[in-house]
Amino acid sequence: MKLPGQEEFDVRNAYENVPTGRLDSDPGSGPSPDGSPDTDSQGLGVPKDPPLFIQLNELLGWPQVLEWRETGRWVLFEEKLEIGGRRWSAPHVPTLALPSLHKLRSLLAEGLILLDCPAQSLLELVEQVTRVESLSPELRGQLQSLLLQRPQHLIQTTGPRPCWGSAHPRESSHDEDAPLKEQRQNALRQKLPPGAEAGAVLAGELGFLAQPLGAFVRLRDPVMLGSLIEVPLPSRFFCLLLGPPTLGRSYHEMGRAVAVLLSDPQFQWSVRRASNLHDVVAALDAFLEEVTVLPPGRWDPTSRIPPPKCLPSPHKRLPLQMQEGKGPSAPRRAPAEDRHSHSPHTPSPELQRTGRLFGGLVQDVRRKAPWYPSDFLDALHPQCFSAVLYIYLATITNAITFGGLLGEATNGAQGVLESFLGTAVAGAAFCLMAGQPLTILSSTGPVLVFERLLFNFSRDYSLDYLPFRLWVGIWVATFCLVLVATEASVLVRYFTRFTEEGFCALISLIFIYDAVGKMLSLTRAYPIQRPGSPAYGCFCQYPDPGGNESQWTRTKPKETDDLLSMDLGLVNASLLPPSECVRRGGHPRGPSCHTVPDIAFFSLLLFLTSFLFATALKHVKTSRFFPSVVRKVLSDFSSVLAILLGCGLDASLGLATPKLTVPREFKPTLPGRDWLVSSFGTNPWWLSVAAALPALLLSILIFMDQQITAVILNRAEYRLRKGAGFHLDFFCVALLMLLTSALGLPWYVSATVISLAHMDSLRRESRACAPGEPPSFLGIREQRLTGLVVFILTGISIFLAPVLKFIPMPVLYGIFLYMGVAAISSIQFTKRVQLLLMPAKHQPDLLLLRHVPLSRVHLFTAIQLACLGLLWIVKSTPAAIIFPIMLLGLVGVRKALEWVFSPQELLWLDELLPEKERSIPEKGLEPECSFSGSDSEDSELMYQPKAPEINISVN
Amino acid sequence: MKLPGQEEFDVRNAYENVPTGRLDSDPGSGPSPDGSPDTDSQGLGVPKDPPLFIQLNELLGWPQVLEWRETGRWVLFEEKLEIGGRRWSAPHVPTLALPSLHKLRSLLAEGLILLDCPAQSLLELVEQVTRVESLSPELRGQLQSLLLQRPQHLIQTTGPRPCWGSAHPRESSHDEDAPLKEQRQNALRQKLPPGAEAGAVLAGELGFLAQPLGAFVRLRDPVMLGSLIEVPLPSRFFCLLLGPPTLGRSYHEMGRAVAVLLSDPQFQWSVRRASNLHDVVAALDAFLEEVTVLPPGRWDPTSRIPPPKCLPSPHKRLPLQMQEGKGPSAPRRAPAEDRHSHSPHTPSPELQRTGRLFGGLVQDVRRKAPWYPSDFLDALHPQCFSAVLYIYLATITNAITFGGLLGEATNGAQGVLESFLGTAVAGAAFCLMAGQPLTILSSTGPVLVFERLLFNFSRDYSLDYLPFRLWVGIWVATFCLVLVATEASVLVRYFTRFTEEGFCALISLIFIYDAVGKMLSLTRAYPIQRPGSPAYGCFCQYPDPGGNESQWTRTKPKETDDLLSMDLGLVNASLLPPSECVRRGGHPRGPSCHTVPDIAFFSLLLFLTSFLFATALKHVKTSRFFPSVVRKVLSDFSSVLAILLGCGLDASLGLATPKLTVPREFKPTLPGRDWLVSSFGTNPWWLSVAAALPALLLSILIFMDQQITAVILNRAEYRLRKGAGFHLDFFCVALLMLLTSALGLPWYVSATVISLAHMDSLRRESRACAPGEPPSFLGIREQRLTGLVVFILTGISIFLAPVLKFIPMPVLYGIFLYMGVAAISSIQFTKRVQLLLMPAKHQPDLLLLRHVPLSRVHLFTAIQLACLGLLWIVKSTPAAIIFPIMLLGLVGVRKALEWVFSPQELLWLDELLPEKERSIPEKGLEPECSFSGSDSEDSELMYQPKAPEINISVN
Repeated sequence: MKLPGQEEFDVRNAYENVPTGRLDSDPGSGPSPDGSPDTDSQGLGVPKDPPLFIQLNELLGWPQVLEWRETGRWVLFEEKLEIGGRRWSAPHVPTLALPSLHKLRSLLAEGLILLDCPAQSLLELVEQVTRVESLSPELRGQLQSLLLQRPQHLIQTTGPRPCWGSAHPRESSHDEDAPLKEQRQNALRQKLPPGAEAGAVLAGELGFLAQPLGAFVRLRDPVMLGSLIEVPLPSRFFCLLLGPPTLGRSYHEMGRAVAVLLSDPQFQWSVRRASNLHDVVAALDAFLEEVTVLPPGRWDPTSRIPPPKCLPSPHKRLPLQMQEGKGPSAPRRAPAEDRHSHSPHTPSPELQRTGRLFGGLVQDVRRKAPWYPSDFLDALHPQCFSAVLYIYLATITNAITFGGLLGEATNGAQGVLESFLGTAVAGAAFCLMAGQPLTILSSTGPVLVFERLLFNFSRDYSLDYLPFRLWVGIWVATFCLVLVATEASVLVRYFTRFTEEGFCALISLIFIYDAVGKMLSLTRAYPIQRPGSPAYGCFCQYPDPGGNESQWTRTKPKETDDLLSMDLGLVNASLLPPSECVRRGGHPRGPSCHTVPDIAFFSLLLFLTSFLFATALKHVKTSRFFPSVVRKVLSDFSSVLAILLGCGLDASLGLATPKLTVPREFKPTLPGRDWLVSSFGTNPWWLSVAAALPALLLSILIFMDQQITAVILNRAEYRLRKGAGFHLDFFCVALLMLLTSALGLPWYVSATVISLAHMDSLRRESRACAPGEPPSFLGIREQRLTGLVVFILTGISIFLAPVLKFIPMPVLYGIFLYMGVAAISSIQFTKRVQLLLMPAKHQPDLLLLRHVPLSRVHLFTAIQLACLGLLWIVKSTPAAIIFPIMLLGLVGVRKALEWVFSPQELLWLDELLPEKERSIPEKGLEPECSFSGSDSEDSELMYQPKAPEINISVN
Repeated sequence: MKLPGQEEFDVRNAYENVPTGRLDSDPGSGPSPDGSPDTDSQGLGVPKDPPLFIQLNELLGWPQVLEWRETGRWVLFEEKLEIGGRRWSAPHVPTLALPSLHKLRSLLAEGLILLDCPAQSLLELVEQVTRVESLSPELRGQLQSLLLQRPQHLIQTTGPRPCWGSAHPRESSHDEDAPLKEQRQNALRQKLPPGAEAGAVLAGELGFLAQPLGAFVRLRDPVMLGSLIEVPLPSRFFCLLLGPPTLGRSYHEMGRAVAVLLSDPQFQWSVRRASNLHDVVAALDAFLEEVTVLPPGRWDPTSRIPPPKCLPSPHKRLPLQMQEGKGPSAPRRAPAEDRHSHSPHTPSPELQRTGRLFGGLVQDVRRKAPWYPSDFLDALHPQCFSAVLYIYLATITNAITFGGLLGEATNGAQGVLESFLGTAVAGAAFCLMAGQPLTILSSTGPVLVFERLLFNFSRDYSLDYLPFRLWVGIWVATFCLVLVATEASVLVRYFTRFTEEGFCALISLIFIYDAVGKMLSLTRAYPIQRPGSPAYGCFCQYPDPGGNESQWTRTKPKETDDLLSMDLGLVNASLLPPSECVRRGGHPRGPSCHTVPDIAFFSLLLFLTSFLFATALKHVKTSRFFPSVVRKVLSDFSSVLAILLGCGLDASLGLATPKLTVPREFKPTLPGRDWLVSSFGTNPWWLSVAAALPALLLSILIFMDQQITAVILNRAEYRLRKGAGFHLDFFCVALLMLLTSALGLPWYVSATVISLAHMDSLRRESRACAPGEPPSFLGIREQRLTGLVVFILTGISIFLAPVLKFIPMPVLYGIFLYMGVAAISSIQFTKRVQLLLMPAKHQPDLLLLRHVPLSRVHLFTAIQLACLGLLWIVKSTPAAIIFPIMLLGLVGVRKALEWVFSPQELLWLDELLPEKERSIPEKGLEPECSFSGSDSEDSELMYQPKAPEINISVN
């Protein structure tokens, strides 16, 4: 069991918040107003209330030139007309003054309420609302013509701003159903879903009225009211608030109050079903019961509150109070139902043990098979095209960097070509077979570390590496198949955030350490020349003294001043550059002939430039500059752009920086071997048995690496419909181990980061969203095609070798550093480490800190740091080979933490282990003070969408 | 005339917001509740209402173990107890539920109201409030002992957390006046000003009560209530809200409502003067009239709103409505009065023309003379010590960088020594004599540009530079004295933001251009060696062949592999480093003997490192990490630290980077000249007359540079008490021109940036501020001593030369780049340029944009950009010498803008010119649509403090 906020990616489309229900539903038994589309409302075929666009037209200019002007509009949030700036304000949370609500209430109570008005046009409507006894016929006519006057809208189109004068009173209403040109051009229209209705609020001060005139109309059928509304939407509500001039702008404020009321889902739900004045006033009173009040001295009512990141869930709100015992009510959904509807820890079917050999695998195949055709059909969407481009670039960047590292780790036993080939073959095969085809395979950090250890071992004992590695692979595949057979994947439920974070932090640190280490090793390879250091001087010596005078003479003109003071007869040296010297039969002499100056610092510059540029570009996404498309491209391709920049810088200076070594032919990097690794090579036969020992360790590592990633990818917050396939995925990994070992290719497991990027690029989001509302997440385009195409392209890229050799190594190291830093920055562990450095006063308002004392949080962080330190030490000593076991030890440490921390604390700091969850009663999860009851204070926050924990930038 | 928000630095201390007034003042004629301290309240000696600390003690644990626990506290904002986290929440704007206010109203209306209760202790108070007929004697006793029970406070001290059980009911109240130890240790105590009073709210649910019990007590004299309040403050108000258990936490919410009410200044003002129940309820109703309402569906009431940057001014609030016609009322101050109270454009006395020769100067001296003694006495404060250290470091950094640039610009005619000496002499003299002694003189960018032009001119015509320069200086001083005599300084009123920004942007661009240009020139001086370039090879040739074999043999061991293949008998070269070669009588031969590798890239690294490090350290101030003292030090000394880091990096590698050249002796940099510049040198006599022409241009430049800075420094927002001295300052600058020209020192004018930093380091701020409230600005410690000491120290630093020569030039260039970037980032012009790149949707909510159409804003920005481009072009062409006139042309362009933009637009984009201001009627400054009335929507924002426009980091 988990706290609800920890598991759900509950970004509901705000339109779903609009209460649903049949018009004739009896109170209390209608479907819930907040039902999610796939369960309640859509499933039962009940029509939802359409969303409402509300517009406030204000009568301005009294007493000189009366004109209607649209001064505010609402869908979810308020947009104000900024007359001076001739623009709409940014959407913001509307704030009202309490007296205006009270005044509105009394005006409505005394005014005209027309429910289910049958008017079919603006003219009819105007006639209906002006049919009040307080108006003389003359006044009525004046008012009617005023109401029919065309209002001024500030419509933001691409064309010139329409700006009619007030000299166009509308005489007829025959063409009211035909939307005007500027209405159709309105950019706002695309933001409203089809079926949206409008509400028109007309407010203002009118000198010739003796007493206030209030009218609230619900039209029986939504009617196009001509140019009244800026978007061509049929209107459902119409509200008129006019009166004699008052102090302040009270009619403006009342108009805003009505508009805000109408934009409230509960109020809207109620007035759509109201049958008389009482119901409307009761709905207003219900609204008042729920408003939040800000004290006047502490909050400036004129400041605008930006839209919150997530709206309060409607079921958190109070049920409507039935004033008459028979008024309409919006029943609310029980919170408990909502809490568990998506819970991944109600053991999901993927992770239930069947008890049969390979039972999990069989079930995975059975579960995924029906989706197989749709896995290709669902890819037919333009979004998949851009996803392919993005992930392809990310994949080859990964293949290049990992290939380069692998080449160094194995001293050339494998290299970039193997990396490309392996990525293409393994990736494509996985996409075709796996349970979770959105996964992108990669040769990741820990496996690479292990490979390096294995290589060093085989080198130290003069073993034939690739055959030895083949046997390790065979054993790993065997062990993995045993794990599949025994359904070991169900153990992933023990991998809590503690384990995930420890693992992720270790990977990230390896990345950072490697990047900086490699960079520093360059400064040793290309030493810096200090003044007075012996590494000075270089000349070209000819083996045969005296015989080269003619050559010397030929080079003379270049060095006239040397010649003047030189005894030519005795000189047997020249100042030709080393390469030229060799060409002419001489020998370059001197220490500085073989050192290349400037390379060390230039490499450092390239390294820093690519790191900083990639980091900066990544942040462009959240900057205010450029249109969002440009920002997205710059941010998504940040590392590719950083590599390109690095290459450009390097090429422009033309220095001999170390470059990526790429084979020119399609043959294994190790000279003289076949693609198929020989089964023994020069190794003794018993080594194939002894390989089982390292293989055991590697199996543990691969199990952890693969399954932690799989758990992250299959989180409930991604709303995957086609289900996970932990057993099937692991089975594929095992088979691919066999294949890659036999061909001498790198070993592959699922890569968290790049797979998350893949899923992110396939997000389905609601297209129509109200101003100020973030697009809501609908799910992922789950299919196999994008991955497949990416890996086919990667395979083709093997022939890109002539291009790749221009990439300087320091640039790749810079990208590696960026990957490591980005990964480690994204986990909660890092945030808690940062808390150690923050004075309590400046700490962010984390829910965690509200519920767990700071000292306990620090203790938890310190334990994690200690574990990480221990892992790092083990990795760095000769005992490194056992570090997979240490990694598994993290699960044990987590278990031991149960003696140190209370379940409540662990719930906030981590998650609970499966058996512990069951042992805690439902209520026990409230904070320890039973009398606090303060849970209600922040339970709303817990419903906020939880971002993926390891939401690292792609490579 | 200006819009009010554009001129005032109106950060009022929130305590000043507490309404003032005598207890016996008759309604309506009491002093205004928002009087500023120096005018109304302090001047009239009226006691202000003391601030109030309100604490909510909640009865928890019913029905098991009853205990009182402090769950909330208020001064300005709310802090909630987070029981699970065992800490206080961050201060936030309190939000209330409307029903709880209504419930509270009815509970108070029916309950017990004791005004001016004479109780002297908690015991007496408890007896008084429980004396209600609804309670049986037995119940009363039970209740009394419950109320006397000691509450649990979460006191954040440095010691161990006090945590008493509930088993210590307080039996006696005799020692109530003696504050408890943990109360005295409470850190909150220091945040409350002396004289603060407390309000205790006790709320909770009590099963044995049959009906609600409400009591509101105003004590006649504030009484120490023992351990009831967590801080040892006497209590003025006491409120008890108890009742039978209800659904939800309604008593908790009512308790919060009372606390929020009491923390409201208007309500507090009213209840302090209330004479009966009606007054209290009327105050509550008045509060309700003013609350801001957030609709329930659009705002999550559980999210916490951080404290706003500035509180709404109390005079913006509605006057209290006198319910009975005789209730107390808090009269409000007329906005017009406030708007103009600090207006700098109600021509200040410093800028009024007297019409007499030197009239302004005489008036300045008369005005400043009385302050002279206090200018030294006011410096006796520890803050001045740290200001001296800070400004001293900034000044020598400036002197070094400008000295270095000056040395390069004048080809060694002046240098670092002159820069130090000039800064010390001119600065100290200015501090002793000037009208605005907070000004720090510096040799700034434009003057340096002019000096370079002058030097180039004299070089081109083979003139003797320093004597020529002396005559220019003499003429400039003459012209400047004429300007002083004619009171030209009053013209500064024509320098609007347009001029200031144009000037500032030009300076900044010169900084940036120079920094980057100097850096690039280093890469030419230390070329990068590309592979295959001829700049290879170096050996040592001995003039006497054969005679050096013994030496060669001695160096053998180093180069064994060379020796093997070398014919020793014929070799007349060695591979000794050039310096060693020369020492041994040989000649270094070859192009690479004289090039130093690696320097170019290492310099670039140093340049970037110092720039980025200084920028990053500057931002530490706003980071969440480290205690504020550490952050302040890191940020204030960012450039010094960046220089130190650069020096450290350079020293650790020991490369021969170009260093600052510092003379070792105290003598002029130009060899063979006296300190006193000869009057003609080798120049013809008529040159002393011709020098008047460049002097005229330089006078314009110096006038603009000096006066723009003076205008900025004397802005009303700094609340200077001792007045400005525009004429006197300029007079001093003229005299110093004479002195520095005669001694061949750099020319000095006021430096904006460093002077602002000086003022900033001398800010007086309120020390006691409520949680969540930023400290309020009280003024500047205006004195002459800090500046004087800084310049004396600078003079002493001339003997620091042996240390300064370790500073690499690229580091100084990096600091220069940082200065330029920081300066240009701080002006509004840059923000408007950024708007050009921002989609309208992402633009910040600037007031400017609410009132001026975006296209007009862009047009204004484009004109500024064009002016800047023109200035830059002129500066870069041979006509550069006339650029001071172009600078003056900015004022003309600004005047011409009046034909393009409406006064309203200019008011928002810039300021109005003096005569234009008078011509616009008061009302005409509202946005163009007279009917909009929307001014009230954001007028509060205009009262927000305006940060200094050019608030650049120091050097």
